[in-house]
Amino acid sequence: MNFVNKLSAAWRTNNSLLCVGLDPDLAKLPPALRHADGIATFCKAIVDATADAACAFKPQIAYFAALGAEKQLEEVCAYIRSRYPHIPLVLDAKRGDIGATATQYAREAYDRYGADAVTVNPYMGFDSVEPYLEWADRGVIVLCRTSNAGGSDLQFLDVGGKPLYQHVASLVAHKWNRSGQCALVVGATFPAELRAVREIVGDMPLLVPGIGAQGGDVQATVEAGRTADATGMMINSSRAILYAAPAAGEDFAAAARRAALATRDDINRYR
Amino acid sequence: MNFVNKLSAAWRTNNSLLCVGLDPDLAKLPPALRHADGIATFCKAIVDATADAACAFKPQIAYFAALGAEKQLEEVCAYIRSRYPHIPLVLDAKRGDIGATATQYAREAYDRYGADAVTVNPYMGFDSVEPYLEWADRGVIVLCRTSNAGGSDLQFLDVGGKPLYQHVASLVAHKWNRSGQCALVVGATFPAELRAVREIVGDMPLLVPGIGAQGGDVQATVEAGRTADATGMMINSSRAILYAAPAAGEDFAAAARRAALATRDDINRYR
Repeated sequence: MNFVNKLSAAWRTNNSLLCVGLDPDLAKLPPALRHADGIATFCKAIVDATADAACAFKPQIAYFAALGAEKQLEEVCAYIRSRYPHIPLVLDAKRGDIGATATQYAREAYDRYGADAVTVNPYMGFDSVEPYLEWADRGVIVLCRTSNAGGSDLQFLDVGGKPLYQHVASLVAHKWNRSGQCALVVGATFPAELRAVREIVGDMPLLVPGIGAQGGDVQATVEAGRTADATGMMINSSRAILYAAPAAGEDFAAAARRAALATRDDINRYR
Repeated sequence: MNFVNKLSAAWRTNNSLLCVGLDPDLAKLPPALRHADGIATFCKAIVDATADAACAFKPQIAYFAALGAEKQLEEVCAYIRSRYPHIPLVLDAKRGDIGATATQYAREAYDRYGADAVTVNPYMGFDSVEPYLEWADRGVIVLCRTSNAGGSDLQFLDVGGKPLYQHVASLVAHKWNRSGQCALVVGATFPAELRAVREIVGDMPLLVPGIGAQGGDVQATVEAGRTADATGMMINSSRAILYAAPAAGEDFAAAARRAALATRDDINRYR
């Protein structure tokens, strides 16, 4: 089963478009978990609490790398794969390098961490993405339109009458995605742009960050980005789920579960 | 001393513009060193053999990450910092993410590995680069024009009458580099483009991959990219130095030293 099929099955099985982002920021964790092994404990508890509400899990490697906690990231990824093998595991790494080096990054994401898909940066062009496609059962999620304010610095530049991000969407949909393994990152903060990308790429899956803590509107996001069968998106929420517990001492996993179920239901209301 | 000052001192002290890239590909190492600890042994021997011929060392993190060899990368970086504290250490990681995550990547590069500078990707805009600037004594080397064939896919797109990479060069030189910590990656495979970037950015340092195994011409590169004082570049060579020994069994470090000295001299001939 390839990445897109696995994702489609998860959309149906859990009736959810919610991607749970695992960005374990030490400063925001319960005090007893503010160390490398603690972030693994935290992430596994979040995974257990949200697995029936999610269509994907997305660990952000930077939070582990800053702490030298690669072993703990391996542990979290292995836990997801063994306990919830039907839920796609997306490694958020945003890699981008020339071919020989891209192969090393693909090994890191797919072989070492066992990710079903990895986020990559398009700036270095197709030969920086092509090596990932050799893992035929895995996916590559290419940055297109990002949800941060500075995203416009390059992505909104005018290229032949359309913004660069639409050019990237066309490139990926019509040239790079020859094997059906590609998806795109398109932020939720600009629903009109999400709609424009959806029109360009047909049914290609979109990873959509920016709801929750980043302020994107759920209704506008769903209406702009859904496919004809009311799927097509991994709508990511990280901080609003991970740190849902309002005060130290409250059960963070129970609070995360409540937040995840509410977000899933909120998304489903507009599908 | 900030990164640019440290680099300028290394250019003078070693009379060299050569950056030695540390890309330890297991398949190309002496058989006895084809394991995680072996790549640290290999890299340290290369460092010792080339330190008086280099203006910078540039470990490529992907080769370590694919093997789960972060501890060995820490060891190599600590070795460079302790034995050759006057030679800038550039971590080639090509990171790019939103602000909160960029801070984690900056911690990884600067605090964990002790890098003097790190390569980053501009696609997500200034707020994905800004967090690195909080480390005032460190540098940020932004991808501009890369030496791979696919580099043209995005970088050569026409933006208001000039290619995207020139727009990136202008953005970095005239907006992002307010604190003098920035440099650019510009490949050696296109000397006319290297010249165009030099004209845009003044004396900003350029990291120039693409000579050696990638085929860039040394004379054309030096003439196109040098500053008025005949410096301004870290001209990178990785494979042509690391794997200079023609046959298994030959002393790889001695061969690397000969290749590094020859490349340094070849560059100096045209300065």
